[in-house]
Amino acid sequence: MSMRVPVHLTAILLVAAHAASCATQIPDQGGSVDSLLSELLTLERAALERWIRLDPDGYLALYATDVTYFDPTTERRIAGATAMQTRLAPMRTMKPPFSDPRYEFIDPKVQRHGEVAVLTFNLVNYGKLADGAERELARWNSTEVYAQLEGTWRIVHSHWSYVQAQPKSPES
Amino acid sequence: MSMRVPVHLTAILLVAAHAASCATQIPDQGGSVDSLLSELLTLERAALERWIRLDPDGYLALYATDVTYFDPTTERRIAGATAMQTRLAPMRTMKPPFSDPRYEFIDPKVQRHGEVAVLTFNLVNYGKLADGAERELARWNSTEVYAQLEGTWRIVHSHWSYVQAQPKSPES
Repeated sequence: MSMRVPVHLTAILLVAAHAASCATQIPDQGGSVDSLLSELLTLERAALERWIRLDPDGYLALYATDVTYFDPTTERRIAGATAMQTRLAPMRTMKPPFSDPRYEFIDPKVQRHGEVAVLTFNLVNYGKLADGAERELARWNSTEVYAQLEGTWRIVHSHWSYVQAQPKSPES
Repeated sequence: MSMRVPVHLTAILLVAAHAASCATQIPDQGGSVDSLLSELLTLERAALERWIRLDPDGYLALYATDVTYFDPTTERRIAGATAMQTRLAPMRTMKPPFSDPRYEFIDPKVQRHGEVAVLTFNLVNYGKLADGAERELARWNSTEVYAQLEGTWRIVHSHWSYVQAQPKSPES
């Protein structure tokens, strides 16, 4: 059971499973997908496609110097690209506990206000476990706040949480 | 045990407990608290102080028309002030399962980029249960994206999640 795996590793690997190269579902609405949404999802996918190979450098390259970050493994908000580099470095020596990861975006949306674009979506990720059967691994609420810095979109804030999560169990 | 309470109600009420009028800890750093941070925390507290009385109208007044929203009760991202009004209306007829709520902000921070200010903090909330003893009720990761719209700060995106949450239990 995944609860036996250290939470930090489990969550990093579940996030890794976001990064399938197929089965990405983006509502097209008759070809009218907003170009900014497309642009940001292209950035997001490129980072995820490296992430699936346990290469955090795609995201690390997207993070602004002052990035702030929450996910289900963080005890406090993480602040700064250097802190994120330290945090994500262990990914490079990990192996995922599943194969054939794939994911589905659910209803990605962008809200632009000046030089900031707030990208939000739900995401479901899947993978095959040791028995070869595909399972739904996790459902996510995802917030990526991008800002245009010197003409380039960078992530200034990222917040990942499980859909309908339960609070952390009290220490026994 | 709180797990027996419907998750939706539990989470709304835990959020309600954010809104204590005391014990708010903001690192002062020798009086140099940024004025924008102070301004946004004033807005946030005013909304929370109504929220604690199960009055959602403080937050509803802060939400931009195109607000988007995640919390541990949402199955999908909520979009739009009208959808938030519908979602929060049931609060008005609820009673909290605790008394004497108080909370602590942990290290609130603002990142400003043009007309957008990303306010992030961790938050711990406490309350007294039926036995009269104060308990820690929940720990939160909190993202409030404010945009200056017609000269007024409005929340355009809000994301609340439990610190170190567990994924939703599989349906049995």
